[in-house]
Amino acid sequence: MNRRSFLTASVAAGLATPALAADGAAPCAPTRGTGDLGLIIERATGSVLIVDTTTRAVVSRIDGLGDLSHATAVFGPSERYAYVFGRDGGLTKVDMLACRIDRRVIQAGNSIGGAISDDGALIVASNYTPGGIKVFDANSLAELASVPAIGANGKSSKTVGLVDLPGRRFAYALYDADEIWIADFSAGATPALTKFTDVGRLPYDANVTSDARHYLAGLFGEDGFAHIDLWAAAPKVDRVSSGYNAGRAKLPIYKMPHLEGWAESNSTLVVPAAGQHEALLIDLETMKEQGRIALHSQPVFCVARPDGREVWINFAHPDNDTVQVLDVFTRKIVHTFRPGPAVLHLEFTPRGHEVWISVRDADRIDIYDVRSREKKAELKAVKPSGIFFTSRAHRLGV
Amino acid sequence: MNRRSFLTASVAAGLATPALAADGAAPCAPTRGTGDLGLIIERATGSVLIVDTTTRAVVSRIDGLGDLSHATAVFGPSERYAYVFGRDGGLTKVDMLACRIDRRVIQAGNSIGGAISDDGALIVASNYTPGGIKVFDANSLAELASVPAIGANGKSSKTVGLVDLPGRRFAYALYDADEIWIADFSAGATPALTKFTDVGRLPYDANVTSDARHYLAGLFGEDGFAHIDLWAAAPKVDRVSSGYNAGRAKLPIYKMPHLEGWAESNSTLVVPAAGQHEALLIDLETMKEQGRIALHSQPVFCVARPDGREVWINFAHPDNDTVQVLDVFTRKIVHTFRPGPAVLHLEFTPRGHEVWISVRDADRIDIYDVRSREKKAELKAVKPSGIFFTSRAHRLGV
Repeated sequence: MNRRSFLTASVAAGLATPALAADGAAPCAPTRGTGDLGLIIERATGSVLIVDTTTRAVVSRIDGLGDLSHATAVFGPSERYAYVFGRDGGLTKVDMLACRIDRRVIQAGNSIGGAISDDGALIVASNYTPGGIKVFDANSLAELASVPAIGANGKSSKTVGLVDLPGRRFAYALYDADEIWIADFSAGATPALTKFTDVGRLPYDANVTSDARHYLAGLFGEDGFAHIDLWAAAPKVDRVSSGYNAGRAKLPIYKMPHLEGWAESNSTLVVPAAGQHEALLIDLETMKEQGRIALHSQPVFCVARPDGREVWINFAHPDNDTVQVLDVFTRKIVHTFRPGPAVLHLEFTPRGHEVWISVRDADRIDIYDVRSREKKAELKAVKPSGIFFTSRAHRLGV
Repeated sequence: MNRRSFLTASVAAGLATPALAADGAAPCAPTRGTGDLGLIIERATGSVLIVDTTTRAVVSRIDGLGDLSHATAVFGPSERYAYVFGRDGGLTKVDMLACRIDRRVIQAGNSIGGAISDDGALIVASNYTPGGIKVFDANSLAELASVPAIGANGKSSKTVGLVDLPGRRFAYALYDADEIWIADFSAGATPALTKFTDVGRLPYDANVTSDARHYLAGLFGEDGFAHIDLWAAAPKVDRVSSGYNAGRAKLPIYKMPHLEGWAESNSTLVVPAAGQHEALLIDLETMKEQGRIALHSQPVFCVARPDGREVWINFAHPDNDTVQVLDVFTRKIVHTFRPGPAVLHLEFTPRGHEVWISVRDADRIDIYDVRSREKKAELKAVKPSGIFFTSRAHRLGV
């Protein structure tokens, strides 16, 4: 598990000097708890901010992470190390206590996200170019496995919608092959593969519920979602919300909604509709649509408050200055406000008392009190996009 | 928020010398992530072990915490500090990075647990003698408020079943007054109190679901549970599973089942039945009993695997050498094993790949792989009881 030899060319290309705190509030301090840390993507500059959610302050800026458009991050179990997946195929392990890059590899030509195994040992990247997934040792970033995505149609496929499942397993969709695969690494670096074919046209993104039971992939080639109940004795694919645009105009889509941003509230899943100004409510007991909520514009992320009572929603260009709050219990929009130009992402503190919002074109992170709806703080950030708090380390399917 | 003057007599009575790692594996290291730390109660010796769930090792032993029978712990948001509530009224703030007691106060004569506010600012202790709750600054342990529990019957009551709710609120039950109170500290140290009276005879313990919606109190004076839907526009008390012992013998109860140990699996709540060899399944959508599972003996803790598919159950004396695993999806007991004499508690790693089990009378902590059911490691511990991992810091209602 310590194959440094794989790393020769690519390791540590960017050992950045620790930056001073951008707001001067909380300098990089190696002795501190890591449960209240977070990482914010600065997409234009290839940098990330390490932040402290208790003091609402920037701890450090770290440069040299490459192309961070659509970048995502996962965290190791100790909440000290973040793994950042860049669009350029870069996989960067960030030491948030030392405020520097620990290791960095270029693992593909074009990548679309990653995941970490339930035991924290394996990092998996999902790739466009070439397709397939790659598996890395979480400590060393040594490559342990490369799994091509050749579908039943014989073509190499982009992989999307990668999530972790219990037992060193990962699920992902093959965009060009209309398939969903589960790769099981519990026995070692050569995975046992379970393949679901003909799942629906062009799965473009997917997610799994927090109990790792329901995997849903959004379909670009048709209305609806491909669904697998992973708890079933013999899991199979069915279709959910098929034809939800039937009989009405589908709007031009400026930005495909993210399924990473769906929201669970008790047994209700809140999913952004593609091409409509609405969110779909899906009953997780029956997997039937149980309602639609009219929204300000086309939703991008539907983010559940940690208790699940509310879902906070941002929107696609050109209406992306606005956030709406849905009360899932009463099924009403209870609050609408305008943080500023280009709201790209929202992240709640782990127990939901505050929410951090990236306002890209204002170069700002806004921090709101969730109950009073009042703004409590602003942080400077350079074109911020994704916000990731370390509490994600403790969740399944992130 | 920094009232050191309150602390004079009682602070730092036990600044213990950091102990070397009992297993020699992972010495106390101030620079490390805290997401994979845990704390284990050694009840007979008034000490706690700090453990590392990644290396499966003891980091340190800390002495001087007083009477730790029935002790519980909560964690601050940074996952550096643990707050341990002792039976003798001691409240001890443990610095898990420095491996020492940070502060300690004797806050009551007899205490039964505590909680931390959603923003991490307030520590609340629930007391038997005198009754009521006390509120402390999480940094300094300065006392900020004392709220007596005088019920409608005019008597001072023991308080039990204390949990945190979003918005600096706490719910708890008044054992001697048949009441449930919600104390709201969002406006400061003088709480707004909401009181529910005649909730049922002698509420002895309670818990809230992970969405902070359903508060259920077990009743010592009658069969069943008092229930409040906290999301309702006008919350009120109703009764759940009333008379579940009707028409059959109720066994002598050696140990009341803990409601802290109930388990949520999708929309099913698994609750230990008092006085029966069974667990009750309650449907959270309807709050109706939906089934009963026959068990090895009288259950104490029903602990859900983090994905909710399985519930692991331990038992009361004299059958407390055994653990059973319930598959909630199929409603079958799928595994029964005997870790050893006096299994007192179980705690899963945050994403559920391993489970730690305290085997008190073998002076041992056993660590099992959850999927293979195989034992992976043993740790020495002196009469261990409660096991608490820092991931609890990120959950509501703990």
